[in-house]
Amino acid sequence: MTQSAITNNTITNYTFEELTIGQSVSFTKVVSDEHIQLFAATSGDVNPVHLDDDFAATTQFGKRIAHGMLTGAFISAGLAMQLPGPGTVYLGQSLTFRKPVFIGDVLTVTLTVKEKRTDKPFVTIDCQVTNADGKAVAFGDAVVMAPEAKATITVPAMPKVTIG
Amino acid sequence: MTQSAITNNTITNYTFEELTIGQSVSFTKVVSDEHIQLFAATSGDVNPVHLDDDFAATTQFGKRIAHGMLTGAFISAGLAMQLPGPGTVYLGQSLTFRKPVFIGDVLTVTLTVKEKRTDKPFVTIDCQVTNADGKAVAFGDAVVMAPEAKATITVPAMPKVTIG
Repeated sequence: MTQSAITNNTITNYTFEELTIGQSVSFTKVVSDEHIQLFAATSGDVNPVHLDDDFAATTQFGKRIAHGMLTGAFISAGLAMQLPGPGTVYLGQSLTFRKPVFIGDVLTVTLTVKEKRTDKPFVTIDCQVTNADGKAVAFGDAVVMAPEAKATITVPAMPKVTIG
Repeated sequence: MTQSAITNNTITNYTFEELTIGQSVSFTKVVSDEHIQLFAATSGDVNPVHLDDDFAATTQFGKRIAHGMLTGAFISAGLAMQLPGPGTVYLGQSLTFRKPVFIGDVLTVTLTVKEKRTDKPFVTIDCQVTNADGKAVAFGDAVVMAPEAKATITVPAMPKVTIG
């Protein structure tokens, strides 16, 4: 497993040349009500299955679920911040949503280099999101243009967001 | 073009049976700095190409760009709120990111029913995101399980979010 290249203040990328097939990073995300509120505000999807406990209790899920594409957002952040990291250009993503995600779920996102083109700095990255039971929640392939220049950048502060 | 089924307070879905090949909805999103800040806070991607004007000026893009997956978030909201709408279960999504998205870009998201399975209520929906110049910014296919029961639901309020 590749060590995460995020320090407190900087991120260092992996260049196309440095990336090797099988190289991977893994990180966890604990899904919170805040994630769901923020995804709703960002996307405009205020469906009650995500936001309304009483409504969600009447659905097949029995309680509120996260938006499926929230896992896509986590994957995209892993590509941009960790593997390959800064300078990466996102070209495409496939995603299969396999299981619902609930508040409190501990998701593990694992990104693994699967294929490198020889004619262009394009890399296919296998993306797996599992829950605490080890069950696949979402998976797919990302295609990115990996950075060609090594870079260490200062990480901007997380935007301060207040809900409610 | 299918009329949007969102009123001020309620949304009505389209059931699997009601959906017809070629049926479509279209809506616009003006990409704002707020969208980018919220997507950063939601996903954890605080890359300076999204958040730092000075850094972004040094990149190939010349100015700050939106996160690619923000277009995925807009598409997912369209599926969940409009076509097919409430009761839809998101099964998968493919996305190609073709052009960068900048603050102020007026994006048009168009969702069109492309295929209906006969054995299961699964529907493939063509997803196109274009900018004000009519250029494709992102596109792909969504696969959803369409609702089987007609439903009109009350839309929860948009979460109140304050940035900064």
